Amino acid sequence: MANITTRPVTKLGIVGAGSVGTSMAYAAIIRDTARQIAIYDIDAVRAEAEGLDLAHGTQFTGANTVTGGGNIEDLAGADVIAITAGARQQPGQSRLDLAGANVRILEKLMPQLMEQAPDAVYIMVTNPADVLAVAAQKIAGLPRNRMFSSGTVLDTSRLRLLLAREAHVLMTSVHATIIGEHGDSEFPVWSNATIGPVPIREWEISGRQVFTDEFLAAATDDVVNAAYKVIEGKGATNYAIGLAGVRIIEAVLNAENAVLPVAATLNGEYGISGVALSLPSIVGHNGVYKMLEMPLDEAETGKLMASAETLQGTLTSLGI
Amino acid sequence: MANITTRPVTKLGIVGAGSVGTSMAYAAIIRDTARQIAIYDIDAVRAEAEGLDLAHGTQFTGANTVTGGGNIEDLAGADVIAITAGARQQPGQSRLDLAGANVRILEKLMPQLMEQAPDAVYIMVTNPADVLAVAAQKIAGLPRNRMFSSGTVLDTSRLRLLLAREAHVLMTSVHATIIGEHGDSEFPVWSNATIGPVPIREWEISGRQVFTDEFLAAATDDVVNAAYKVIEGKGATNYAIGLAGVRIIEAVLNAENAVLPVAATLNGEYGISGVALSLPSIVGHNGVYKMLEMPLDEAETGKLMASAETLQGTLTSLGI
Amino acid sequence: MANITTRPVTKLGIVGAGSVGTSMAYAAIIRDTARQIAIYDIDAVRAEAEGLDLAHGTQFTGANTVTGGGNIEDLAGADVIAITAGARQQPGQSRLDLAGANVRILEKLMPQLMEQAPDAVYIMVTNPADVLAVAAQKIAGLPRNRMFSSGTVLDTSRLRLLLAREAHVLMTSVHATIIGEHGDSEFPVWSNATIGPVPIREWEISGRQVFTDEFLAAATDDVVNAAYKVIEGKGATNYAIGLAGVRIIEAVLNAENAVLPVAATLNGEYGISGVALSLPSIVGHNGVYKMLEMPLDEAETGKLMASAETLQGTLTSLGI
Amino acid sequence: MANITTRPVTKLGIVGAGSVGTSMAYAAIIRDTARQIAIYDIDAVRAEAEGLDLAHGTQFTGANTVTGGGNIEDLAGADVIAITAGARQQPGQSRLDLAGANVRILEKLMPQLMEQAPDAVYIMVTNPADVLAVAAQKIAGLPRNRMFSSGTVLDTSRLRLLLAREAHVLMTSVHATIIGEHGDSEFPVWSNATIGPVPIREWEISGRQVFTDEFLAAATDDVVNAAYKVIEGKGATNYAIGLAGVRIIEAVLNAENAVLPVAATLNGEYGISGVALSLPSIVGHNGVYKMLEMPLDEAETGKLMASAETLQGTLTSLGI
Ligand SMILES: NC(=O)c1ccc[n+]([C@@H]2O[C@H](COP(=O)([O-])OP(=O)(O)OC[C@H]3O[C@@H](n4cnc5c(N)ncnc54)[C@H](O)[C@@H]3O)[C@@H](O)[C@H]2O)c1
Ligand SMILES: NC(=O)c1ccc[n+]([C@@H]2O[C@H](COP(=O)([O-])OP(=O)(O)OC[C@H]3O[C@@H](n4cnc5c(N)ncnc54)[C@H](O)[C@@H]3O)[C@@H](O)[C@H]2O)c1
Ligand SMILES: NC(=O)c1ccc[n+]([C@@H]2O[C@H](COP(=O)([O-])OP(=O)(O)OC[C@H]3O[C@@H](n4cnc5c(N)ncnc54)[C@H](O)[C@@H]3O)[C@@H](O)[C@H]2O)c1
Ligand SMILES: NC(=O)c1ccc[n+]([C@@H]2O[C@H](COP(=O)([O-])OP(=O)(O)OC[C@H]3O[C@@H](n4cnc5c(N)ncnc54)[C@H](O)[C@@H]3O)[C@@H](O)[C@H]2O)c1
Repeated sequence: MANITTRPVTKLGIVGAGSVGTSMAYAAIIRDTARQIAIYDIDAVRAEAEGLDLAHGTQFTGANTVTGGGNIEDLAGADVIAITAGARQQPGQSRLDLAGANVRILEKLMPQLMEQAPDAVYIMVTNPADVLAVAAQKIAGLPRNRMFSSGTVLDTSRLRLLLAREAHVLMTSVHATIIGEHGDSEFPVWSNATIGPVPIREWEISGRQVFTDEFLAAATDDVVNAAYKVIEGKGATNYAIGLAGVRIIEAVLNAENAVLPVAATLNGEYGISGVALSLPSIVGHNGVYKMLEMPLDEAETGKLMASAETLQGTLTSLGI
Repeated sequence: MANITTRPVTKLGIVGAGSVGTSMAYAAIIRDTARQIAIYDIDAVRAEAEGLDLAHGTQFTGANTVTGGGNIEDLAGADVIAITAGARQQPGQSRLDLAGANVRILEKLMPQLMEQAPDAVYIMVTNPADVLAVAAQKIAGLPRNRMFSSGTVLDTSRLRLLLAREAHVLMTSVHATIIGEHGDSEFPVWSNATIGPVPIREWEISGRQVFTDEFLAAATDDVVNAAYKVIEGKGATNYAIGLAGVRIIEAVLNAENAVLPVAATLNGEYGISGVALSLPSIVGHNGVYKMLEMPLDEAETGKLMASAETLQGTLTSLGI
Repeated sequence: MANITTRPVTKLGIVGAGSVGTSMAYAAIIRDTARQIAIYDIDAVRAEAEGLDLAHGTQFTGANTVTGGGNIEDLAGADVIAITAGARQQPGQSRLDLAGANVRILEKLMPQLMEQAPDAVYIMVTNPADVLAVAAQKIAGLPRNRMFSSGTVLDTSRLRLLLAREAHVLMTSVHATIIGEHGDSEFPVWSNATIGPVPIREWEISGRQVFTDEFLAAATDDVVNAAYKVIEGKGATNYAIGLAGVRIIEAVLNAENAVLPVAATLNGEYGISGVALSLPSIVGHNGVYKMLEMPLDEAETGKLMASAETLQGTLTSLGI
Repeated sequence: MANITTRPVTKLGIVGAGSVGTSMAYAAIIRDTARQIAIYDIDAVRAEAEGLDLAHGTQFTGANTVTGGGNIEDLAGADVIAITAGARQQPGQSRLDLAGANVRILEKLMPQLMEQAPDAVYIMVTNPADVLAVAAQKIAGLPRNRMFSSGTVLDTSRLRLLLAREAHVLMTSVHATIIGEHGDSEFPVWSNATIGPVPIREWEISGRQVFTDEFLAAATDDVVNAAYKVIEGKGATNYAIGLAGVRIIEAVLNAENAVLPVAATLNGEYGISGVALSLPSIVGHNGVYKMLEMPLDEAETGKLMASAETLQGTLTSLGI
C-alpha cells in the first residue's frame, strides 16, 4: 500500500516560545486549531522544552502535533504565522526604545519568515502590535490583508466580561467593541453597544438603569488598565491573549469571514490611512478582507482620530 | 419572573495558582471541564491576577467562570479539588526535606479544605504526589477513593507519544501504560503493550521489527527523564500536567468510569497495602472505584514491588 | 472501595421519538449536552429502536448514555424535558383541529410528566408550540419561566443563514432576530439588525447597498415559508430544530443566561399578557429569567400586536 | 483589499440524501468534520430539502456550509466521498439481487464521481458494503487504499457498548474488535479483548467472572443481529452509522493514522486476497495505509477464512 506519511492539513507557525507564544500553542492544541504547530525561538533550548511539554499533552487532544526549536525552517509552509517574539524591556529603556528594539528584530526576522512561508497570513502579537504590524508589512512587502495585528480582540473580550457580569448574561450575548489603538487611547463604542438587542444604556434590573455613565467610564478605565493590573500581579499576560490569538487564527484557517476587531493598515477608512488601528474587520482565508465603518458619534470619531494620531506619531518617531 | 442567578452546575477548585494550577485552569476553561472554576493560593495577588487573565479569555470558551484569590472560602462546595500548591525547593534542601515541607503545608491545608468541600473528590498533583496523597488522606481522614494522585497519567502520555511517533499512528491507537511510582522507579508494562491490537514487539514497518529491546529500553529512559529534561529547558513542567489533570477531573465530573493510571492507596492489590502507586484504575463520580490487577510478567512484578518499597521507605522516613 | 455507580450529572428527557425528538437526541449526544438522555414515546417499539441506534453511536461521543422506551418513569428526575410528541395531521383535519388534538395529548401527558420531573424546565417543541406552551403551563400549573416554547430560535437561524450568505460573513457575525409568533405572523426586526456592527441597510459590497428593501422583503418571505419548503421536499423538518432545541437546552443545563428568542407567556411586556410569543429572552438555570423589550419601530410594534392577537385568537378558539 | 471569497479548507462529498447520508452530514456539521459538505442524490428535490434543513442548523455549529442537490458537479474537488446511495429492496428481491442492483448503480456512478473528484478517498457505506467496495474499486480503477468500506467500525461500536455497560466502564476503555465480513459471518476477537488492560475473561465484579462464555456468545449474537433489531423497530439504521462514518472521514481529513476496522481489498494479509473484509487498519490522509495482522486463535482464524469465502462467493455470483 501507500507509504505511511502524516501530511499536515493545516499548519500554524508561532514565533516566540515565551509565555504568550506557548499559551497560544496550548490553546491551539486543545481546540484543534491546526493539524501541525511549530514554535520557533532564538532560544532553542527553551523552545524545545516548551514543545516537548506541549507534545506530552497531546494524548488528551485531537490529532495534533506540536514541536519547538531554534530552526526557522520548521515554519516552512505554514498557513498562518503568529509573531509573539519580542525583546524584554531593559532598565531605563523607554517604551519607544523597546518598540525600536522590536522593529530591529523584525528587520532580521521578516525576510527569513517570508522565505519559509511566503503565502502565510501573518498576525502580529508582539507589542506595540499596531506599530509593528505596519513596520513588518513594509519590511516584508506584504499586502495589508496578510499582515495585521491582533488588535483589540483581547481588549474587547475584557470589556465584554465586565459588562456580562454586571448584566448577568452570557458573554456572547454582549455586543460591544473596543476600537482604535491597542493601547492607552483605545475606547469602547458605547453608541453602538447592546446587551442582547437592548441598547446598553437602556438595560435595567428591577427598573434601575444598570449601565450609568459612571459605570461605563469606570469600565473603560478598567479595560484600558487591565493589562497593567495583570502584569503587576503575575509579571505578564498570556492566557487571554493565547485564546484571542487562536480565535483570530481559526478565522483564517477555517475561512470563516468572522467579524473581529483586528488592526490592518487603514487605507481611507474614516479618512485615515497609513496606520493600523483596530476596527471590526472581516477575517478569513486571505486575512483581513475588509475593515468595517460602523456608525460613530462625534466624540467617538474624535477619539478614533486621536488614536490614529498617536500611532502616526510613534511610526514617525521610529522612522517607519 | 425568577431572580437572575447563575447556579454553577459543576465546580472545580484548584489549590495553587502556580504554573501547574493555572495551566490546568486554562485547559479546563477551554475544554469546558467545569461550569465554575475557583483558584486559591496563599499568594492572593498572584492568584487574583491569574484569575483575571484567565477570565479575560472566557469570551472564546463555553459558559465558564473562573476566579482566583486568597480566600479559601471560594472553594466552598467544589465537586473536585486539585491540589497543586507546593513549597519551592530551597538551596541545599534535599528532595526528602521538600517532601516534608509539603506534608507540613498539607497539615494546615487539608482541614481547611475539608471544611469548605467535605464531599469533594481530591486529586493530588503536588510532588511527591504519591507520598502526599497518602499523607493528605490520613490528615483529612478521607476514604482512599476520594484522595488519590494524578499518578502516571502524564508519564503514560509521554510514553504513548514516543511510541506513536515511531509507529506512525495516532496516539490513542497506542495501548501502553506506565505503572508504579510517579518517579524514578516507574516502568512501562511492555508485556501488555500493543499498537492497535498488535503486540508491540510484533509491530513491523517494511518487514523490520520497530520496537526492539534497545528501543524499548531507551523509550523507558526517555519517559523517566522527560520531566528533568523539560525542567532543565524551561524551569518547570506545566502544560502536559495541566491536560492530564483535566482529563482525570473530567472522569470524575462526568461520572465516566474511565480507566486511568492514577494512584490511590493500595489495599491488597498485588499483595501491596498502605502505599499509593499507579495502576490502571476506574475513575468516576466517587473518585477511584477500583484499581485493576493486570497480568504482569515476573520482571514487571519485581519492579512493582520495588516501587512499593521505595514509596514505603519515603513514607516511613517522613513518619507517615 | 465504593460500589460502582454511574451517577448522571445532568439528565435530559425527550418526549417523542419521532424525527424531531431523535434528531435532538443525536445532536445532544454529539455535543455532550447532557450526561444522560432518556427518550419516551407511546410507541415503545420505535422508541427502543431509536434509543438503541443512538446508543450504538456513543462510542464516538463523550461519556453519554441514551435510552428510548415506552416507560415514562425513565424520565424521572430529568433537569430539562423537551416535548416533541404530537399527533399526525389527519386527512380533512384543520390546523386548529390538530392543535386541539395536541392539547388533549398534553392534558394526559403533563400531569404524568410533573410526577416524574416536578422541578424540570420544560421546553415545548410540538406545534403550534407557542399555543401549546400556554396550554401546558396551565395544565401543569407551572410558572411561566419553566414552561416555554422553542419559539423563533430556529426561524432566526434561518434568517441569519440567508443574510450571512449574502453578506459573505460568518453566521454568528450576523445580528438579526425573528420575533412574534412561531408561524405565519412572525417578522424580523430590521430596525435593529446589523452585520457585525454595521446597520443592515448600510452594508455595502463594492459601494452597492446589499440589503435593499426588496431583498429584506424576500428574505422575510423565505424564512416564513422555509418550513413549508423543507416539508414539501422531505416530509418533515428535523435536523435544524434538533440543533435549535439543543442550543436552548444547553442554556438551561449550563446556567448560561444566554439571550435567545424563545416564547414564554408574556406578562405585560410591550403591554401584552397571556400569550406566549417570541422575544429575545434570558435563558438559564431556571428557564426564562426575563423577556427583553428591544426598541421597535412603529411598523414592527404593529406586527407584534398582530402576532399577539393571532395567538390570542387561537387560544380562545381552543378554550384555553 | 482582496475580494471576499470563502475557500473551503476541506470538502466532504456525500452521495445519497437518504437517512444514512443525511445523518452523516448532520454529525459532520455538529462535529466540524469538514469546512464544506455537499450532498448529491438523484432525487434532487429531497436532497435540496435535506441540504436546506441541515444548513438551517449551522447557526449552532462551527463555520460549516452544507448544501444538497441533484448536480453531481457539486462534489467537485471533494477530499473524501462517502457513498450511501442505494436501491431499495423490492418485494420478492433477494439480497443478492439487491447487491446486483447496487453494482449497476455504481457502474454509472463511479465514472461520474471520478470525473469530479479524481483524488478523493472513497468510503463505501451502501450495503453490501464490503462487496460494493471491491466492485467500485474495479469500476473506478482505484488503488485499494482509496476505496474501502466502513467495515465493522459500527459493529465494533455496538460490541463495545454491550461490554462497557456490563463492565461499568467508559466505552473507550473497552478494547475489543469485530472483524471479518460486515454481515452475518462477522465475529469478535475475544482472544485479544480487554477491559482497560485486563483480559476480558479475567474481569471480575466482587470476585465473580463477568464475561462468561455464555455472555460472550450472547453478546456476539446481539451484535450480529443489532441491525435487524433496529430496522424492525424503526425501519432503518442511520444515527450510529452516521457517527461511525464521520469517525472514519475525520481520520482521513485530519491525516490521523488512526487504527479502525475498515475493509479494503486484502492483498495477502492472513493469506487472503481479492476480497475486502474488516481488519484493524491504519487510516489517514491517503485512506488505508495498512491492514494489521493481529494474533488470532485457531477458531478465529477459521472464522476469518469463512468470512473471506462468503464474500468471495458473493463476488463470484455477481461476476465481479
Ligand atoms: N497584542 C496583545 O494583545 C498582547 C498581549 C500580551 C502580550 N503581548 C506581547 O507579546 C510579546 C511576548 O510576550 P511574552 O510574555 O511571551 O514575552 P517573553 O519574553 O516570555 O517571550 C518572548 C520570546 O521571544 C523570543 N525572541 C526574542 N527575539 C527573538 C527573535 N529574533 N526570534 C525569535 N524569538 C525571539 C525570546 O527568546 C522569548 O522566548 C510581548 O511583546 C508582549 O508585550 C501582546
Ligand atoms: N504530579 C505530576 O505529574 C506533576 C507534574 C508537574 C508538576 N508537579 C508538581 O506540582 C507542584 C506545583 O508546581 P508549579 O510549577 O505550579 O509550582 P509553583 O511554585 O509555580 O506554584 C506553587 C504555588 O503554590 C502556592 N502555595 C504554596 N503554599 C501554599 C499553601 N499553603 N496554600 C495555597 N497555595 C500555596 C505558591 O504560592 C505557588 O503559587 C510542584 O510540587 C510540582 O512538582 C506535579
Ligand atoms: N417548534 C418548532 O420549531 C418545530 C420544528 C419542527 C417540528 N416541530 C413539531 O414537532 C412535532 C414532532 O414532529 P416529528 O416530525 O418528530 O413528528 P413524528 O410524527 O415523527 O413524531 C411524533 C412522535 O410523538 C409520539 N407521540 C404521540 N403522542 C404521544 C404521547 N401522548 N406521548 C408520547 N409520545 C407521543 C408519536 O408516537 C411519534 O413518535 C410536530 O408537532 C412538529 O410540528 C416543531
Ligand atoms: N455499512 C453500514 O454499516 C451501513 C449501516 C446502515 C445502512 N447502510 C446502508 O446504507 C444505504 C443507505 O441507507 P438509507 O437508509 O440512507 O437508504 P435510503 O433509501 O433512505 O437512501 C438512499 C438514497 O440513495 C439515493 N440514490 C439511489 N440511487 C442513486 C444514484 N444512482 N445516485 C445518487 N443517489 C441515489 C436515493 O434517492 C435515496 O435518497 C443502504 O444500502 C443501507 O443498507 C450501511
